[in-house]
Amino acid sequence: MVQERLGRLRARMEQEGLDAYLILTEDFHGSEYVGDYFKCRSYLSGFTGSAGSLVVLKDTAGLWTDGRYFLQAEEQLSGSGITLFRAGEEGVPELPDFLAEKLPEGGRLGFDGRSVNCRLAQGLAKKLKNKSIEFMYGKDLVGEIWENRPALSAEPVMLLGEQYTGRSRAEKLAQIRGLMKEKKADYFILSSLDDIAWLLNIRGGDVTCNPVVLSYLAVSQDELVLFVNEQTLSGEVRDALAADGVTFAPYNDVYEYVKKIPEGSMLYADEAKTNYALLSSRAPGVELTDGENLTALPKCIKNETEVENERKAHIKDGVALTKLIFWLKQNVGREEITELTAADKLEELHRQQENYMGPSFEPIIGYAEHGAIIHYSATQESSVLLKPRGMVLMDTGGQYLEGTTDVTRTVVLGPVTEEEKRAFTLVLRGNLNLGAAKFKYGVCGQNLDYLARFPMWEEGLDYNHGTGHGVGCFLNVHEGPVSFHWRINPAGRRICTVLEEGMIISNEPGLYFGGKFGIRTENLIVCRKAEKTEYGQFMNFETLTMVPIDLDAVLPETMSRKERALLNDYHKKVYETISPYLTDEEADWLKDATRAV
Amino acid sequence: MVQERLGRLRARMEQEGLDAYLILTEDFHGSEYVGDYFKCRSYLSGFTGSAGSLVVLKDTAGLWTDGRYFLQAEEQLSGSGITLFRAGEEGVPELPDFLAEKLPEGGRLGFDGRSVNCRLAQGLAKKLKNKSIEFMYGKDLVGEIWENRPALSAEPVMLLGEQYTGRSRAEKLAQIRGLMKEKKADYFILSSLDDIAWLLNIRGGDVTCNPVVLSYLAVSQDELVLFVNEQTLSGEVRDALAADGVTFAPYNDVYEYVKKIPEGSMLYADEAKTNYALLSSRAPGVELTDGENLTALPKCIKNETEVENERKAHIKDGVALTKLIFWLKQNVGREEITELTAADKLEELHRQQENYMGPSFEPIIGYAEHGAIIHYSATQESSVLLKPRGMVLMDTGGQYLEGTTDVTRTVVLGPVTEEEKRAFTLVLRGNLNLGAAKFKYGVCGQNLDYLARFPMWEEGLDYNHGTGHGVGCFLNVHEGPVSFHWRINPAGRRICTVLEEGMIISNEPGLYFGGKFGIRTENLIVCRKAEKTEYGQFMNFETLTMVPIDLDAVLPETMSRKERALLNDYHKKVYETISPYLTDEEADWLKDATRAV
Repeated sequence: MVQERLGRLRARMEQEGLDAYLILTEDFHGSEYVGDYFKCRSYLSGFTGSAGSLVVLKDTAGLWTDGRYFLQAEEQLSGSGITLFRAGEEGVPELPDFLAEKLPEGGRLGFDGRSVNCRLAQGLAKKLKNKSIEFMYGKDLVGEIWENRPALSAEPVMLLGEQYTGRSRAEKLAQIRGLMKEKKADYFILSSLDDIAWLLNIRGGDVTCNPVVLSYLAVSQDELVLFVNEQTLSGEVRDALAADGVTFAPYNDVYEYVKKIPEGSMLYADEAKTNYALLSSRAPGVELTDGENLTALPKCIKNETEVENERKAHIKDGVALTKLIFWLKQNVGREEITELTAADKLEELHRQQENYMGPSFEPIIGYAEHGAIIHYSATQESSVLLKPRGMVLMDTGGQYLEGTTDVTRTVVLGPVTEEEKRAFTLVLRGNLNLGAAKFKYGVCGQNLDYLARFPMWEEGLDYNHGTGHGVGCFLNVHEGPVSFHWRINPAGRRICTVLEEGMIISNEPGLYFGGKFGIRTENLIVCRKAEKTEYGQFMNFETLTMVPIDLDAVLPETMSRKERALLNDYHKKVYETISPYLTDEEADWLKDATRAV
Repeated sequence: MVQERLGRLRARMEQEGLDAYLILTEDFHGSEYVGDYFKCRSYLSGFTGSAGSLVVLKDTAGLWTDGRYFLQAEEQLSGSGITLFRAGEEGVPELPDFLAEKLPEGGRLGFDGRSVNCRLAQGLAKKLKNKSIEFMYGKDLVGEIWENRPALSAEPVMLLGEQYTGRSRAEKLAQIRGLMKEKKADYFILSSLDDIAWLLNIRGGDVTCNPVVLSYLAVSQDELVLFVNEQTLSGEVRDALAADGVTFAPYNDVYEYVKKIPEGSMLYADEAKTNYALLSSRAPGVELTDGENLTALPKCIKNETEVENERKAHIKDGVALTKLIFWLKQNVGREEITELTAADKLEELHRQQENYMGPSFEPIIGYAEHGAIIHYSATQESSVLLKPRGMVLMDTGGQYLEGTTDVTRTVVLGPVTEEEKRAFTLVLRGNLNLGAAKFKYGVCGQNLDYLARFPMWEEGLDYNHGTGHGVGCFLNVHEGPVSFHWRINPAGRRICTVLEEGMIISNEPGLYFGGKFGIRTENLIVCRKAEKTEYGQFMNFETLTMVPIDLDAVLPETMSRKERALLNDYHKKVYETISPYLTDEEADWLKDATRAV
């Protein structure tokens, strides 16, 4: 089937005079997750992983993916004639280098310019400059050959009230237009979906787990055009948006709109988050200024209403997860519970909570050695039975009207080894120390990452992922620009992001022993102002997540007095906050599970 | 006198058609300390502080200096007619803005282009562009009117043998020429004096406390010209340098040399460390590439021989300081000891050590409230009697053939308050925690600075200086590019410097309470490789400084178990290392002073 599809694509390529066609994983908005309409690469190659790039040449084809997907890609590509390129492995060429080698001098490369961000396309152009390669980016050849392609998502749009957003649409628009003036921007094109949802105080359901609306937004001082499928808008939504000056146009008309921006204007956009076709539509006399989306930082800094709501969301989430942990501990080995049915049980418990809108990402529930696979997602094939021994790693999150949650607990199901306990305690110590940081205003994530890692580093251990990411408010669970990591990358758009009051960030150190077990302990924390002294404004974190940490895997004697006090204080708060929502039996268990050590 | 000198300068300005003349503090090499020959600003204004910029206009003059020198400048400028501008205070214009306002359209600004670094002059040019100001930078007008100007320093040059440098001149030259090839540089002009001394394995005495040689160096693949006063070179030195291809030219001929660099060549230089006149001498067809001196990083990474020698230097330094502390504790209140005579005593003790070459900076010995003045340097006027109460802060360092030292101890001379002890212990904890850091290769100073500060930050306290600076090997006590600080400055030449094995850095947290007391505890530490595991190469620090930390001001009950263990381990090593060089009486005292807590 794959070969037949490739054959049809190659026939179209020949008609267009193309030497190669490139298919990435992105939708038109650079979303982390994409709807079925956008899954061109899966359709064409059969490989369904969440990351992968396909290059089709006249007589060969290659797929690049990363270590998470080597096994899966090998299986799914078998017999397809597509070569697997294991990105990052020694001797494996990078995709742009491969193209630079394979394409003939003066050759033509095709891709759908709406599915490739501007930054990436520019990098590719630079790499291929020496060979004078021409881009053809205006046609979606895969779409042309795709029979029965799923329709674009068109879920209804809802308004999110000020009791949740804490700020009116008008107020946010005034702020962004003020920033545009500072940048001397006549037009600001916004196409990242969470930024649009935040700015307009709307939510939708067009991307799995992300409550966003498929749309583009054009902002000028006197115009505000939302390019959207108008069928998704109720009269109430239209009226509310129109009252703040929003006008509506069909989703795809944004390309024509950009084409008509008057010459001499300055267009501001984030090239890393806006597609190549869109920015390439502009007239030659329109100056493009590349910069971070003007909404990015305001969205990241949560206001008091948002923070207060997030606290509520985390109580609900904590109740659901605490009940799940209790249920698991009671029933493992007695009834058949698999990774998948545990996830089902959690979803059921989540649904008992008011204003629960669905998961904020695909739950990661990995038992024993599956816990060591950082991006594990159980399937019918991989899902295993949970047994009354060892540990299960559960990284889950919910969308509530009040906010987005993301929490990881590693839960002891029966006897665990000293090695497991030692590792668990190291991870816990990292989590506790970062959560307890106190620092001066101006500090960035890179200044604090050591706190989460030092217990592992002292033992020559480490985890191969960032320590934390920003989290949206009833929006995307991964939200920039704030994060915790230690590398200072001088090439990045933001070398560092100062920790501001109201930023919500995950705190998730881990340890992974392939084939054996994995541990991660993740809380969401919110940055708060502490005291102001003659030395400056001091800051700290408040932990939002309210779920017990499994004492059955803790070695208190390897913790400092301060670390034990932090754990005990946290557990006391968890008990006080969560127990009122539990049955007596659950509350009794929680009392013991949060005992001081 | 000042007015008379200003009058003569203004007469010369009028002859040259200048509207203003600018006099900074730098020598021709951007040295931190400058010789008497270069003290034009003191000569002209009477203000002798180590930092200050003077602007002379036709009918007015202004001097800019920072908070350290407000009082001194006020006194020294009194009656001179020069206005004091307190840099950094609210409402005080910055010098470039002042010039931009005062200079007439199309006006002419004069300065000695040899005493202004290229980066600074370019910034000034940018600021003055709107007014089309012309620079006249080729004449040293102050020099022309300066009667009995001191001569340029011309101290004899010595060779530093491979038993100290660990690497031959030829090897270093090959490395630098290799880096030039990578940068496609035809010529590399080096004018920072410690870089020249390092590269040629020579030392001198032309700058106070810095064992460097007044010179410039021009490097190409086939030429190596040292511009130097040839009278400072013995036959032996000449022959050794000539054997590695060095040719010699008079000190000032470097300007003619740069002028004659063939058009079409690429000249590499560090604009922040090379003077404006020198780089402006190049022909229009010579391309200038600005970048960090190619010697900076190789010089910063000490080899095993240098590290082993630094250990020896620190033992000698530790013996001298330990003897001083013993002597102070025995004699304070019994005999007259002042801040200045304590410094004399230390110098005497240093001189008893083999290969001691002099102090590495002006010692800072500040008793009681003088300890709170970060850059305090006792004078005949300020020096006070040490009394048998409170504490004295002593920040001192030596130059040895084996290396450069820099150590601060705050010593208890009698009863101290709980407040003093609490502050002392906070500083100590910061010092101990940073010194004990273990981290993965790739980490920079900004990732670790928190370790030194968190005990203070937890209490809402802070110190207003960096935590540490790089230190040379029998070279400058302040050496880039490595350092410990927390701010990540995206505008800097180096956003961060990875900590490499062999880098020697100071670890010097402090606390300062103006009018009361100041505390600083400073060790030099050297970065070392720890184990390599599947997670990567781990790194840690070895403490070089071997001087007891005063337990009379330590509150062990406010320290963690780990911190107490670090202190005890350090003290055990200090006793074992230093006691063999002490008298029995001193050793007995040290035994008690390094007891476990």
